[in-house]
Amino acid sequence: MQHKSFRAMMCPIARTLDRVGEWWTMLIMRDAFAGFTRFEQFQLSLDIAPNMLTRRLQTLVKSGLLERRLYSNRPPRHEYVLTEKGRDLWPVLVTLAAYGNRHFAEHGVATRLVDRATGKPVEVVVADKGTGRILDQKGFKYSPGPKADAALKLRIRYADARQEGLSGRPEWEAFAKARKEKATRARTVS
Amino acid sequence: MQHKSFRAMMCPIARTLDRVGEWWTMLIMRDAFAGFTRFEQFQLSLDIAPNMLTRRLQTLVKSGLLERRLYSNRPPRHEYVLTEKGRDLWPVLVTLAAYGNRHFAEHGVATRLVDRATGKPVEVVVADKGTGRILDQKGFKYSPGPKADAALKLRIRYADARQEGLSGRPEWEAFAKARKEKATRARTVS
Repeated sequence: MQHKSFRAMMCPIARTLDRVGEWWTMLIMRDAFAGFTRFEQFQLSLDIAPNMLTRRLQTLVKSGLLERRLYSNRPPRHEYVLTEKGRDLWPVLVTLAAYGNRHFAEHGVATRLVDRATGKPVEVVVADKGTGRILDQKGFKYSPGPKADAALKLRIRYADARQEGLSGRPEWEAFAKARKEKATRARTVS
Repeated sequence: MQHKSFRAMMCPIARTLDRVGEWWTMLIMRDAFAGFTRFEQFQLSLDIAPNMLTRRLQTLVKSGLLERRLYSNRPPRHEYVLTEKGRDLWPVLVTLAAYGNRHFAEHGVATRLVDRATGKPVEVVVADKGTGRILDQKGFKYSPGPKADAALKLRIRYADARQEGLSGRPEWEAFAKARKEKATRARTVS
């Protein structure tokens, strides 16, 4: 599947999507969280073409989310095991599943997250670990980090203006200008 | 971009990915959360081919995440506004961004979520709304819902066995058998 690489983009969402932003990749990770490790297991679950599965597994190994491990010498056989970095993707899958159950389960819920001990279903929210506060767009916002460039800072100013109910027109103009200048510089360099 | 539709799958992750599981789609939503509403705005931000952007926006409108709204009569111009269903995707983007900052920000963080009032950065976790407990794979698991079929129930039994440190071999055999029977039935029907 061809696409422009998001790797060079600064946005942390784009950077993650560059590695896992593809249907099959996310479903391979889902299966890995269910304890699947072998090629045949993923294939049975996903009903995917072998060459495509091979490529997706390679991508995940290269990105450090899965580790390819020899589990038999004769014949040589490998399995794909979650790394710590891979395990850390679990919250993303949990929010995706919760969203799917809320909005795309027209005919009922097939699977839902429950407390392992009590079996009680949970209602998934995102929260701040330190304070326990539930995160929402009203109380929280994206702010420039140390690596933010001028265009990104202006983009965030636009988002702030919009959130306050303003048109954000001057902020937009400034952002658009910076964005175009950045694109021109990128073309000049390459 | 062609792919097998995940719409018919029961898994809530697959169902969500069927609607938003594509790089551009997720980044369009990111921009929508930043207050972008117009075609030209998305295009400037994403540097995407117009026909591709049109298609992605149409998908998001069809799935009910964006609403196409007339904002000028002469000439007729439309903007794309987040629906309630669209707004509800925010936690997914928040967990994606947090993951990107933790694992793919080798050269520093460009943007991070902060408390709007204090500017204090937050550490994003998934939690149970009712109890406030932080969710992790040790304490929580996927369990069959009312619409789970035999294969899905067996799949979950396998995952449970694996989580307990077992090989899950008998559970796997049972799941694989059910999965193959299901595939055979699907082919017979169609």
